[in-house]
Amino acid sequence: MPRFLFDLVPLPIVLAPMGGAPGTPALAAAVSEAGGLGFLAGGYKTASALREEIAELRRATDRPFGVNVFVPQRAPVSGTTVEAYVASLARAGYEPGKPTWDDDDWDAKLGALVDERPRVVSFTFGLPPADVIAALQDLDMRVILTVTTADEVDAAAAVSPDALCLQGFEAGAHRGSFDDTRDAANDVGLLALLAAARVRVGIPLIASGGLMHGRDIAAVLVGGAHAAQLGTAFLRSPEAGTHPVHRAALDSPSSRDTAITRAFSGRRARGIVNRFMIEHPDTPSAYPQVNNATRPIRNSAGDRGDAGAMSLWAGQGFRAGRAMRAGELVAALMDECRAALAGAPALV
Amino acid sequence: MPRFLFDLVPLPIVLAPMGGAPGTPALAAAVSEAGGLGFLAGGYKTASALREEIAELRRATDRPFGVNVFVPQRAPVSGTTVEAYVASLARAGYEPGKPTWDDDDWDAKLGALVDERPRVVSFTFGLPPADVIAALQDLDMRVILTVTTADEVDAAAAVSPDALCLQGFEAGAHRGSFDDTRDAANDVGLLALLAAARVRVGIPLIASGGLMHGRDIAAVLVGGAHAAQLGTAFLRSPEAGTHPVHRAALDSPSSRDTAITRAFSGRRARGIVNRFMIEHPDTPSAYPQVNNATRPIRNSAGDRGDAGAMSLWAGQGFRAGRAMRAGELVAALMDECRAALAGAPALV
Repeated sequence: MPRFLFDLVPLPIVLAPMGGAPGTPALAAAVSEAGGLGFLAGGYKTASALREEIAELRRATDRPFGVNVFVPQRAPVSGTTVEAYVASLARAGYEPGKPTWDDDDWDAKLGALVDERPRVVSFTFGLPPADVIAALQDLDMRVILTVTTADEVDAAAAVSPDALCLQGFEAGAHRGSFDDTRDAANDVGLLALLAAARVRVGIPLIASGGLMHGRDIAAVLVGGAHAAQLGTAFLRSPEAGTHPVHRAALDSPSSRDTAITRAFSGRRARGIVNRFMIEHPDTPSAYPQVNNATRPIRNSAGDRGDAGAMSLWAGQGFRAGRAMRAGELVAALMDECRAALAGAPALV
Repeated sequence: MPRFLFDLVPLPIVLAPMGGAPGTPALAAAVSEAGGLGFLAGGYKTASALREEIAELRRATDRPFGVNVFVPQRAPVSGTTVEAYVASLARAGYEPGKPTWDDDDWDAKLGALVDERPRVVSFTFGLPPADVIAALQDLDMRVILTVTTADEVDAAAAVSPDALCLQGFEAGAHRGSFDDTRDAANDVGLLALLAAARVRVGIPLIASGGLMHGRDIAAVLVGGAHAAQLGTAFLRSPEAGTHPVHRAALDSPSSRDTAITRAFSGRRARGIVNRFMIEHPDTPSAYPQVNNATRPIRNSAGDRGDAGAMSLWAGQGFRAGRAMRAGELVAALMDECRAALAGAPALV
């Protein structure tokens, strides 16, 4: 029965790992139970919190799942521009926290992966050391690397992952770009990225970015993807931990466009355009320092119901989102995908 | 035999209108002769020059073709920022021309269309008046409007075109955005734009942006497009009028990325990243004034073989370009497209 993703799951659908709040064990379990590959987001939490989530997920399903981990970012040479940004937030009446750097508990998280052995591990924000990849593979974990450009495809292929996750420009939340300081030229549309990758590497390609409907999935499968990864499509599912204010914004007629911003985290990420994003067009590239500094601002905004100062991460297709149970959504996506493939034009 | 594009042509391939130099009558004729829809670029030339091109095209083929026309841009309220930009070019050692505004010979071009009656007319840079569209349709011309966002899809649908050309973020050359002053939030990846458009309108959708291979065409057809429009894919064809310096840049290993810039024209357009683009990241939105001011600079750079100061328009897939005769490229694209559709995964 399993055919996709290293013959682990029956359907070519991957749940995007969604850090912060949306990516709950319940959501991952629902997608895995429905025949896709559920994913936990290892980012923003301690290794022990991740271990607890893995345990909770395993209580809910014995199907395969994946865990995503952020590759630590280099500490900046100087914190001056970061301090200036934080000071500007305080002057504007916000109450920022300290712009501390951290490695997202990297070593302990690798230890948790070695102990817990999820079937699939993916990395974002650059390449982990090759020996880390090899060590996980030696323990029978499959390693997926996230890439956003043709050059990143080449660099990732050189460290022998089992698959690549191609993150198109359309994708919600953080860009997986290896180098956050390169702006426009680093952003590639999903179809163009897929076309570039399929002639460069022979390993499975997982397409992500803006995919909301089974017809979108059919398109990327025909374009050369082995599977499709969807995040925003699941944000309104009841199993997702999406903050109520975020959930309401996804469904609001006043939410028109998304854009890419560093305002919330110091790393480029796509979300629904809101006040904080517009107020801060020139945030320095400094992740996770800015992310740590804005956390109290974002949390307080969430508590007050102020959608204008939260990070409303969403991909470009968010307006097509559906408030369905995750398992039912997987089934609907597959029905739509099959119909699109069956209805493909017969060209003479 | 004809099945696509208002039952005018046998194949779902449209040649993108490419103003400046690449879009010759010979290129349009070759694509139409091969079974696609050739296109002439009406922009940047006088109505009488356009009439001559139409006559030349008709001498080469009796197949249907299209003509693209730029919708005139509003004159800016103040020319101060434009003058400052032109002055900065002069200070940097360039020899700019005058930043004049023009309407691209709009009225006379509409007259030429009425006289010449190409089977298809497309518009870019916004919406023409509804009575212009209706007048062309009354004369049995099919009208295509170019859109880049879901909101533009809605606005275009309201003036009753025969089809929409969806221009994804990946596309080379000028963005067709109705409002050039909105940056990031105006850019949508092709697949996401296609997904948004297919639930909004029932007229044929032509997908464009980054499409270089028949497999890309298959993907957008499955995703809901009626046809695919390709420009960059034809830039290296011998029939194209692509400047030799531009042609060499498309094939050069040192040409890595593309980005969107206003530096050359005062309107956002995608090209290969080069010196002039990097030197001028903050060019004001002022088309065609900036375009007219930089013309002598671009022409002189071309004459000297300086690729650093020419507009090297190209879509994101340019590295997959092929130096094939246009008719052979159309045939190859269709073979690849058919193979991709035939090889689509059979999902249980």
